[in-house]
Amino acid sequence: MNRTNRTELRRLPNRGSHEWTAIYDILDAGFLAHVGFQVNDQPVVIPTLYGRAGEKLYLHGSAASRMLGELEKGMPACVTVTLVDGLVLARSAFHHSMNYRSVVAFGTARKLADEGPKSSALRIISEHLIRGRWDDVRTPTDKELKATSVLEFQIEEASAKVRQGPPLDGEEDLGLPVWAGVVPLRLQPGTPVPDSRLAPEIALPSYLKSFADKH
Amino acid sequence: MNRTNRTELRRLPNRGSHEWTAIYDILDAGFLAHVGFQVNDQPVVIPTLYGRAGEKLYLHGSAASRMLGELEKGMPACVTVTLVDGLVLARSAFHHSMNYRSVVAFGTARKLADEGPKSSALRIISEHLIRGRWDDVRTPTDKELKATSVLEFQIEEASAKVRQGPPLDGEEDLGLPVWAGVVPLRLQPGTPVPDSRLAPEIALPSYLKSFADKH
Repeated sequence: MNRTNRTELRRLPNRGSHEWTAIYDILDAGFLAHVGFQVNDQPVVIPTLYGRAGEKLYLHGSAASRMLGELEKGMPACVTVTLVDGLVLARSAFHHSMNYRSVVAFGTARKLADEGPKSSALRIISEHLIRGRWDDVRTPTDKELKATSVLEFQIEEASAKVRQGPPLDGEEDLGLPVWAGVVPLRLQPGTPVPDSRLAPEIALPSYLKSFADKH
Repeated sequence: MNRTNRTELRRLPNRGSHEWTAIYDILDAGFLAHVGFQVNDQPVVIPTLYGRAGEKLYLHGSAASRMLGELEKGMPACVTVTLVDGLVLARSAFHHSMNYRSVVAFGTARKLADEGPKSSALRIISEHLIRGRWDDVRTPTDKELKATSVLEFQIEEASAKVRQGPPLDGEEDLGLPVWAGVVPLRLQPGTPVPDSRLAPEIALPSYLKSFADKH
């Protein structure tokens, strides 16, 4: 992987990593990315779902999407994925922090025009989100594929940043009568809510049960 | 509020809003922002905590932070906050979606240099995250304040986007034998983990109990 000062880990190099495995672990645990790009001197950050295959991320949306329309021009973009793991409460305001895992990935995107690669990419995004879903649903028609824009974002450079563990108060503050510790946070699935028009004989598929267990 | 084509809601205007109340509700329900800015033709997106007072957002970090150092130059920036509410599973791949609330805010930041405004802003960030915490902890020393950079981001323009509710399959797909509905998702606090060096007589404060109840 290239490494320029774009991803130089300046402040806390011990919290950072350029290792692909660390980067992939985070990208594979998340599903929501924040994509940054520039439109007429204005940075824009848009949330979007994604999927991954190797060093490529797949983004999709309406063919009329402004974000995808801009990105497919091949301009430099940034895809950031952040997983929140907890609030770190120290005895001092100064040492409060957040436990998290994040990846900042730089690269450029190109539009997938042909039906084959487009379908494959949609499958990757779907399976990334909920493994097993794609084979269960009605796949896209030609018309639906045309109405969908799919982009392949090539990661040219990326870094991972992780903060875990307890608060790190200074020795002099340890005696303060203040509760200190970590409040874990987790994006948790609730009980699935069936569509009101779902036939009662259609049971919750097993891949959705294991989705709830996994998260 | 100004409104230019930066926040023009192109694709699904019925999902969007320029109302301040809608925007504030989302900003106040979230605590993690993704901040976008440009460094040498490269867009960069960094996750960070924030607080809000009126049309201003407050960001903080190490005085050595690259992001804050860039933003305080007053360049155009974008602050995006996304709350994930659920996965929307349709009978067709095409109609899958996500329930979410998001705000995209454009503006510029300036550094708070004086101790007074700096301290007030840190209090706003802290109270935004966990109300009641600031008055409980040791507040920053002069040295700690100097080591902290605090920015005030003036929202010049913003839009909110919300998607809620069940999947919207076409009539022709309603009879397919596929489970459809919503898997709710929520960032949920777990049981607080006390620091290993916490004196056993220090109980969990009530504001942390209500934090867990609120989320």
